[in-house]
Amino acid sequence: MRIVLIGAGNLATNLGKALFHAGHEIVQVYSRTEASAKILASVLKCTYTDTLEDVTCNADIYIVAVKDSALSDVAESLQKRLVDKLVVHTAGSIPMDVLPFSRKGVFYPMQTFSKGKEVDFSVIPCFVEAATEGDVQLLKKVGLTISDTVYELNSESREYLHLAAVFCGNFANHCFSLGAQLLKQHGNIPFSVMLPLIDETAAKLYTMSPCEAQTGPAMRWDTNVMDKHLQLLASTPDWQKIYNLMSQSIHCLSNPSCSPNSSFPLTSSNS
Amino acid sequence: MRIVLIGAGNLATNLGKALFHAGHEIVQVYSRTEASAKILASVLKCTYTDTLEDVTCNADIYIVAVKDSALSDVAESLQKRLVDKLVVHTAGSIPMDVLPFSRKGVFYPMQTFSKGKEVDFSVIPCFVEAATEGDVQLLKKVGLTISDTVYELNSESREYLHLAAVFCGNFANHCFSLGAQLLKQHGNIPFSVMLPLIDETAAKLYTMSPCEAQTGPAMRWDTNVMDKHLQLLASTPDWQKIYNLMSQSIHCLSNPSCSPNSSFPLTSSNS
Repeated sequence: MRIVLIGAGNLATNLGKALFHAGHEIVQVYSRTEASAKILASVLKCTYTDTLEDVTCNADIYIVAVKDSALSDVAESLQKRLVDKLVVHTAGSIPMDVLPFSRKGVFYPMQTFSKGKEVDFSVIPCFVEAATEGDVQLLKKVGLTISDTVYELNSESREYLHLAAVFCGNFANHCFSLGAQLLKQHGNIPFSVMLPLIDETAAKLYTMSPCEAQTGPAMRWDTNVMDKHLQLLASTPDWQKIYNLMSQSIHCLSNPSCSPNSSFPLTSSNS
Repeated sequence: MRIVLIGAGNLATNLGKALFHAGHEIVQVYSRTEASAKILASVLKCTYTDTLEDVTCNADIYIVAVKDSALSDVAESLQKRLVDKLVVHTAGSIPMDVLPFSRKGVFYPMQTFSKGKEVDFSVIPCFVEAATEGDVQLLKKVGLTISDTVYELNSESREYLHLAAVFCGNFANHCFSLGAQLLKQHGNIPFSVMLPLIDETAAKLYTMSPCEAQTGPAMRWDTNVMDKHLQLLASTPDWQKIYNLMSQSIHCLSNPSCSPNSSFPLTSSNS
C-alpha cells in the first residue's frame, strides 16, 4: 500500500514505523511542525510537508493521526483534494462520521504511546471501521500486516472500548501515581518496591478475570483496616474520597445484591 | 533456621515453600482447619496440628500468617508457650505491638497471593521489623535467603506502604474490573484485548515514574472526550463518580497549583 501519514506525534511515529517495516510504502509525512515531519520522514524514507495543500493525491490510504481537537479542521482542509481516496483517523473516542469523505474509516490501535519508548505493534489489538465493506476488508488486511489481532468495530462500541481503556490504562496508572505519592511522603520508600506487585497484578489477568483476581481489605470488607487507611489519608481529602468510592465499588461488584445507594460503614471520610 | 508456620492460607503456603526451598527446616504447620494443615505439611515435609496448645516449643522462629482479624486471639493463645521465642506476623497494616511477646517482629512480603498461582519469591520485597536490633538482623538474614530485597521498616511507615499497595494493587485491579464490565455490557468485546495495554502501562514504570507515564483525556484535560465518557456512564452513577474523581485527581497531580476545592468543568455527572 502507498500510505500518507497526516501527523508526526507518538501514535503516527509508532504506526508509521510498523507499516514501514511491514513493507508498505510511506509516501509522505505531514506535520504542522516542519521539524517533526522531517524527523519522521527521514526514518520512513519519504518526503514531508508542513502544508496541508501540499499533501500528495498520489496514495492509497491517508492516515490522519493528529490531536483529537484538530481532527475536524485537518479533515476539512483535505476534503477537496482527496476525493475517492480512503481517509482514516486513529482516535478511539471519535466517530467515523467526523470525516467528510465518501471513503472514510477508522484505524484505532489500542495502546498507550509515549515518546522514546518503542512498542511491539504485533501484540496491539487494532479496531477498524469503514463506510464500505470493501474498505473494511482493506483495513483489516493492512492491519494484519502489523498486528496479530484486528477487529471490526463500529463507532458506538468503540466509544465504550475507549472508555474501558481509560479505566484499564489511565486510571490504573493514576492509582500507581497515588501509591507513589504516598511512598514519597511517608518513609521515603522508593517506588520500585511496588513493581513486583504491579507486575503480578497484571500477570494474574492471563489466568483469571480481574473480578476473580480482586483481593484486599475492601474485598474482605475489613472495616478495621479501611477505617485506619481513611485516617492515614486525612490530610488529603481527595484521595480519601477516591479510597472510599473505590472500596465501595469493589464491595458492590463482588456483591450483586449491593444497592448503589446503600450507606457504607466508612465514616472517617467525614471526620 | 527451625521455623513453625501458624496458618496455611495463600501467604503461609507461598512463604513456607520459599523458606523450605531455601533450605530452612519447617518444623510444624498449624491451621485451625486440619485438612489445610495436612496439605501444606505434606509439601513442607513436616508435622502439623489444628490445636494451638500442640504447637511445638522447639523452633527458632514462629511465623503467624493468619487472617488479620484472628491475629490477636491466636497470638494470645501462644503467649505462655513461646517465651523467649521470636514470633513474627506477616500483616502489612498491623503494628508489631499487637504481638504480646518480648521477642516480637514483623515479616511482611509485599505481594498479592492467589490460590493456585505460584509466585517467584526472589523478586518480592520483604519488610522486617523487630523489638531488638539482633532480631532485625536475624529477620533480614532469613529474608535474604528467599528474596533479593529486604528492608527494615517501622510499623508506622509500613502502614503507609500497605496503603500504597492497596492503591497500586487492589485499586488498579478494580480499574481493570470496571473496564471488563464496560466491555461485557457493550459490544461484548473480550477482555483479553486490554492485556497489551495493561502490560505496557505496567512496563512503562521501569523507565519512567507513573506521573511521567500518565496519558489520556484527563491528563490533556480534553473536556469534549470526558463529557462524552460521563454520558456513556449515565446508567452507572457510581462509575461516573469514580470517573469524575479520578479525572480531577489526575488533573490536580499534574498541576500543582490546582486547588482541591476548585470547581471542575465536568457537569454531566449531575445530569
